[in-house]
Amino acid sequence: MKFGHFSDTAREYVITTPRTPLPWINYLGSEAFFSLVSHTAGGYSFYKDAKLRRITRYRYNNVPADSNGRYYYIKDGDTVWNPGWQPTQTELDSYECRHGLGYSIITGKKNSLTAKLELFVPVGDNCEIDRLVLTNESDAPKSFTVFSYLEFCLWNAVDDSTNFQRNFSTGEVEVEGSTIYHKTEYRERRNHYALFTVNTPIDGFDTSRDAFLGAWRSNANPEVVENGRCTNSVAHGWAPVGVHQVNVTLQPGKSRSLIFVLGYIENPEDEKWAAPGVINKTRAQAMAARYATDAQVDAALARLHDHWNNLLSTYSVKSSDEKLDRMVNTWNQYQCMVTFNMSRSASYYESGTGRGMGFRDSCQDLLGFVHLIPARARERILDIAATQFPDGSAYHQYQPLTKKGNMDIGSGFNDDPLWLIAAVYAYLGETGDYSILDEPVDFDNDHSLAQPLLEHLRRSFGYLRTHKGPHGLPLIGRADWNDCLNLNCFSKEPGESFQTTGPSEGPVAESVFIAGMYVKYGNQFAEILDSTGHTDEAAAVRAEVAEMEHTVLTAGWDGKWFRRAYDAFGHVIGGEECEEGKIFIEPQGMCVMAGIGVDTGEAVTALQSVKDKLDTKYGIVLLQPAYTKYHLELGEISSYPPGYKENAGIFCHNNPWVSCAETVVGHGDRAFEIYKKTCPAYIEDISEIHRTEPYVYSQMVAGRDAATFGEAKNSWLTGTAAWTFVDVSQYILGIQPTLAGLKIDPCIPHEMDGFTLRRVWRGATYEIVVENPDHLEKGVKAMTVDGKPVSGNILSPVPAGSTVEVKVVMG
Amino acid sequence: MKFGHFSDTAREYVITTPRTPLPWINYLGSEAFFSLVSHTAGGYSFYKDAKLRRITRYRYNNVPADSNGRYYYIKDGDTVWNPGWQPTQTELDSYECRHGLGYSIITGKKNSLTAKLELFVPVGDNCEIDRLVLTNESDAPKSFTVFSYLEFCLWNAVDDSTNFQRNFSTGEVEVEGSTIYHKTEYRERRNHYALFTVNTPIDGFDTSRDAFLGAWRSNANPEVVENGRCTNSVAHGWAPVGVHQVNVTLQPGKSRSLIFVLGYIENPEDEKWAAPGVINKTRAQAMAARYATDAQVDAALARLHDHWNNLLSTYSVKSSDEKLDRMVNTWNQYQCMVTFNMSRSASYYESGTGRGMGFRDSCQDLLGFVHLIPARARERILDIAATQFPDGSAYHQYQPLTKKGNMDIGSGFNDDPLWLIAAVYAYLGETGDYSILDEPVDFDNDHSLAQPLLEHLRRSFGYLRTHKGPHGLPLIGRADWNDCLNLNCFSKEPGESFQTTGPSEGPVAESVFIAGMYVKYGNQFAEILDSTGHTDEAAAVRAEVAEMEHTVLTAGWDGKWFRRAYDAFGHVIGGEECEEGKIFIEPQGMCVMAGIGVDTGEAVTALQSVKDKLDTKYGIVLLQPAYTKYHLELGEISSYPPGYKENAGIFCHNNPWVSCAETVVGHGDRAFEIYKKTCPAYIEDISEIHRTEPYVYSQMVAGRDAATFGEAKNSWLTGTAAWTFVDVSQYILGIQPTLAGLKIDPCIPHEMDGFTLRRVWRGATYEIVVENPDHLEKGVKAMTVDGKPVSGNILSPVPAGSTVEVKVVMG
Repeated sequence: MKFGHFSDTAREYVITTPRTPLPWINYLGSEAFFSLVSHTAGGYSFYKDAKLRRITRYRYNNVPADSNGRYYYIKDGDTVWNPGWQPTQTELDSYECRHGLGYSIITGKKNSLTAKLELFVPVGDNCEIDRLVLTNESDAPKSFTVFSYLEFCLWNAVDDSTNFQRNFSTGEVEVEGSTIYHKTEYRERRNHYALFTVNTPIDGFDTSRDAFLGAWRSNANPEVVENGRCTNSVAHGWAPVGVHQVNVTLQPGKSRSLIFVLGYIENPEDEKWAAPGVINKTRAQAMAARYATDAQVDAALARLHDHWNNLLSTYSVKSSDEKLDRMVNTWNQYQCMVTFNMSRSASYYESGTGRGMGFRDSCQDLLGFVHLIPARARERILDIAATQFPDGSAYHQYQPLTKKGNMDIGSGFNDDPLWLIAAVYAYLGETGDYSILDEPVDFDNDHSLAQPLLEHLRRSFGYLRTHKGPHGLPLIGRADWNDCLNLNCFSKEPGESFQTTGPSEGPVAESVFIAGMYVKYGNQFAEILDSTGHTDEAAAVRAEVAEMEHTVLTAGWDGKWFRRAYDAFGHVIGGEECEEGKIFIEPQGMCVMAGIGVDTGEAVTALQSVKDKLDTKYGIVLLQPAYTKYHLELGEISSYPPGYKENAGIFCHNNPWVSCAETVVGHGDRAFEIYKKTCPAYIEDISEIHRTEPYVYSQMVAGRDAATFGEAKNSWLTGTAAWTFVDVSQYILGIQPTLAGLKIDPCIPHEMDGFTLRRVWRGATYEIVVENPDHLEKGVKAMTVDGKPVSGNILSPVPAGSTVEVKVVMG
Repeated sequence: MKFGHFSDTAREYVITTPRTPLPWINYLGSEAFFSLVSHTAGGYSFYKDAKLRRITRYRYNNVPADSNGRYYYIKDGDTVWNPGWQPTQTELDSYECRHGLGYSIITGKKNSLTAKLELFVPVGDNCEIDRLVLTNESDAPKSFTVFSYLEFCLWNAVDDSTNFQRNFSTGEVEVEGSTIYHKTEYRERRNHYALFTVNTPIDGFDTSRDAFLGAWRSNANPEVVENGRCTNSVAHGWAPVGVHQVNVTLQPGKSRSLIFVLGYIENPEDEKWAAPGVINKTRAQAMAARYATDAQVDAALARLHDHWNNLLSTYSVKSSDEKLDRMVNTWNQYQCMVTFNMSRSASYYESGTGRGMGFRDSCQDLLGFVHLIPARARERILDIAATQFPDGSAYHQYQPLTKKGNMDIGSGFNDDPLWLIAAVYAYLGETGDYSILDEPVDFDNDHSLAQPLLEHLRRSFGYLRTHKGPHGLPLIGRADWNDCLNLNCFSKEPGESFQTTGPSEGPVAESVFIAGMYVKYGNQFAEILDSTGHTDEAAAVRAEVAEMEHTVLTAGWDGKWFRRAYDAFGHVIGGEECEEGKIFIEPQGMCVMAGIGVDTGEAVTALQSVKDKLDTKYGIVLLQPAYTKYHLELGEISSYPPGYKENAGIFCHNNPWVSCAETVVGHGDRAFEIYKKTCPAYIEDISEIHRTEPYVYSQMVAGRDAATFGEAKNSWLTGTAAWTFVDVSQYILGIQPTLAGLKIDPCIPHEMDGFTLRRVWRGATYEIVVENPDHLEKGVKAMTVDGKPVSGNILSPVPAGSTVEVKVVMG
């Protein structure tokens, strides 16, 4: 069952009923000012940090779902309605929400009045524009009243939702003309305020929530709207809100637009005040003036469209499969960009108040994003690397505002250092910018310890080389990629962190998954060393890698699949001898991606075991059999009910690893089958089961052990986006940026005739045609460049601005 | 304007409309299981710790206000209503809420059906009983359906409201018979679950919120209720709820009661399971069986009434002023008990998720509570003292579950140590139990450092003696009683703690307020030393005190009032020379209570200045003039808008200090005038302005600089309760437990003819008659005990169980 459809030409998902299974959202903004907007205009805005600079108030896990946002009420006679249905839920004569790239358009119609609400954050500005276009579609004049409504957050989202004994006394506003200024705490240490304005004289305003809603009422039935007139209330404490009243009369067939701007302003210390107690509004007025006319808004929208079209032109495919094309060309890349911007901070499942940026998360997100804006990837790499410890280990998380490592969680996630190599290799492959390796980068944010980035990579690899367990496998520390596999922690008390309660070092638990990474990213490190003239060191690294490969195929091999780990007592995790958790997905994908057992047969055997034991119609589950009880020696993984999350859920992030791995052994059919199972466009038809947005990936789909098999959760902010894009763009379609050049090595379903693809790489545009006349799954038998046959399948860089015609014939 | 009235005979406040200005709440429970219940049945329950063992989910600062609780829906034909009006807000034919001592009774009537909901927590048990009595008042049979509804919290209230990416996958329940078991995380580290049951077979159940409410609906219009039948849903993740369906048919004039029990159960590790995955329900079944009949519930209610009547019989007055009597005999003491139980953790303004117990808060709360259950006061004193540091300073807060000091906030609130002396003195005066002084008590929870409690007092006093500033006044540290006066902190960044950003020691800022405490509690400490044979040490302490008294009257005296402090630069705070904040309330009350300037005239002068400069019709404001801008050198106090909170609000806690002080100088009229201004019973008539509950104190009333002058905030959990009870019971009515005996020294309005009072003290009952034939304000000219004249006005202890008739004639 569907609740909308894709519009590939407009690059929009069009939702045709407000009654979706869950709120289906979009992200506005891509630099500093961000808004989350649901298909019913719910959501909130923030500046840079969703915890510390929350601009509007949102209530997670509320009833009804998604019950705060930027709302526009229309009182037309006795009927009160919203173009987005919420919060009045007045039935509409027609409804549509179009989520596009950085904008959303929500259109409602009631009693021959159409209200079209366009929402976006302009490129390069710190505000959200809400343009409401009202059209009288009847054949008589219409008079009605529009009320805007949003609720200000008192900036710090955590304090705002807990410290009422203070906060109910601090709220302050100013109103001047059509602009409402939210200035809570500006009188003391804040240098910022918010404004909410509209480009027309207003017929009234309210800034006190109590005055607008009325006692014991909600935003579903505000008293002011019912009465048809604002009270011009000025908030003193309690809950400041922004409400404008605009009375409108429209002749038949006529339209009027109202442009609302929600903005964030910072003032320098010496420019804070216009008069004692009166804020300096100069910058706010200038912002309002930038969006005072439809022409200005149209121009800003055009800039936004250009911005996204430019970004996404870096990689685009044309195949016979429209679902593949729309995911690759639009939605997967779009989600990669959002994930990179947000890390795991603010979604409808991440409250935006917790942890900062993840070391591992950001490195992985970068794999899916580096081709879009390499300069931001460069910056992020240097930020991340600066939180690394001198011994090569790393803070697991860091704060985006301070860029300092997060001491609460600390270090000891032993996969982290290797992800830095992965990120840097991806950046080098994309850009060829070796200068990044010479950048001096702090250790532990201590500038006196700064070393070139290459030295950071050396210590990353070195940390793992010097932290091995009894079987010669890497020590797992607090956890590896699977944060819930806590082999050195033995937590018995509720509320304790599963990750940080135990020691990060000491016990001997080992990870086969990290061993796979060690081989894969060790080889990438060697390649970087070779490319920078460190040939001897490269050889030494490769020797280390070869030794680890052997260890994986002995201590890490269970007979039919790769083991997952050894626990603190030396017992096997993820082996036939285990009662529960006999086989895990992660090492199968990673070890085969690393090339382990490809020549000797274990790779194919392992992937067959995945298919036999872990595959389901909705994706590959993380492990089998699910843990039915809490295992003290395993930690959080066994804390989930069977079939959910890491306990045998379909944890989407690791599915592309297996898909990638299948391409490594040449199984294009199977790789694509796996790709499709979790790919939003291919499962749009089961939205009533899947429930989350059908245009982006979710973190998790309930596994076959769960009562709600197939139900997805935690959409948008997941490493799935990046890894799936790596899978489909590099492993399946096979366009691989490497240090040596752009490698073309498709591994596709045999029935596919081929595809054409445009790839902008190092400033040049490659127009690539792949033909598959023999209907193979893998293999390149011939390649021409600008019509000339070349040997091999690697394209060397050409001058920026060039266009290169590439023809590839599989065989 | 009133929204209800007191019932003195029933000791209840009777609310007669659901549309009160704010939710008006009550507390159920007094040991381990607590519930907050509003007059519309909103609120939540927890076991011991409102953060870590939250049983039901509540949403602070939501719209509509107070929109979650334990709700009972009645579907009678097409009409759906709740006895407490919320959440359907269906207009009722009649409504009443009676908040009593540890119970509430909410009665609604609609279409000739009366539903009476009695809510209480039984003494000695870990559950809330909700008895719903339904009566058909029509002359025809009635068939209707009852649905219960509550939403479970996933135990940790902070995690529950932030960690959705995990929590939406963890919810688990079991249903057996009429009982719904909430067992989220019981499968792993929790040893506890909740049950929600009803004493009758049910016609259906729901445990999935989505199933009960329906998509996009709220608890105002659940789909299941609208349809009239449950779906028997079993929650897997998302939001587990408890819903019972009971179909009822009542003949005319007949009643039926349904007894719902919401309980908390802990199982020992080896008794957790009845079968794999099936919880052991033995204890839950036993609990349900304890409240299966009306007779059992009636008996439990009777025990509850006895419990409270016994408690409150310790102190009761009979005067010609019914408002005085009802506050002293019932509501003030009731609030003291609640405040002692909750500290500042869980109210409708304190989210229950923050800080633990306050060192200073608990000591002060104890002053108002020690006469009720001295044994719990003893226990609390020993807990508190064990968090003291060896140098006499103290953790400012500690965690109630672990009883460990809270490192986040640390120490350095330099009034803290002296409050320990105040608490111990109050305990000794009440009980004469000197054995507490010999109890070995840890320092910093380190048992190896344990010393007798007397040594803790010695170090308390010693810490202040050795931490004085340039003027010889005590160093203030992070802050004194006024947490917002941060003289050593210079915070410029939003979100920084005003208290902990700066150093706790180092700078030289001094507090005149602490100097007042030093004198008052130094004298009490000397009295304790004398009473335990440490005569020389007592004399030394008194010499120290005398020196400080001198210092206060020189460096601390501004000419017409006591100064507040010296800042880190040696500038006066609270003096005529200041531009803003010329005079503060706190040192005037504390210094005069300490006796400073009483003989030399400064005391009367200072109190006159308070009247002239700080008094308003709603109470005495904290300071004048209000700070109009942020003062970096003062901190949080200047962060509030003028008239709110510590910035010139009427901070109720310190009003009784001035009232006490007025009695010290013999001003009974003025003392009582001050008492009445903030006393709930006397301002019940302006509930539309005051807004908070008219039966308990609030922390703050907006001052005259505020736009909402007279509006109260932060009701229930405030030291105001304890200090006002000290004021009215010891200073105004004048019954003072001292080490020497029970002193009788009233200071009352001159028009009062006298009063009679029963005081249970050290096991004996004193029936006291005070006569004021000459209409004086203070002074005792004659006293008889059991009819025999005695000299002085101090009653010596008599054997427990005795009754003593005391007659006092003022003159």
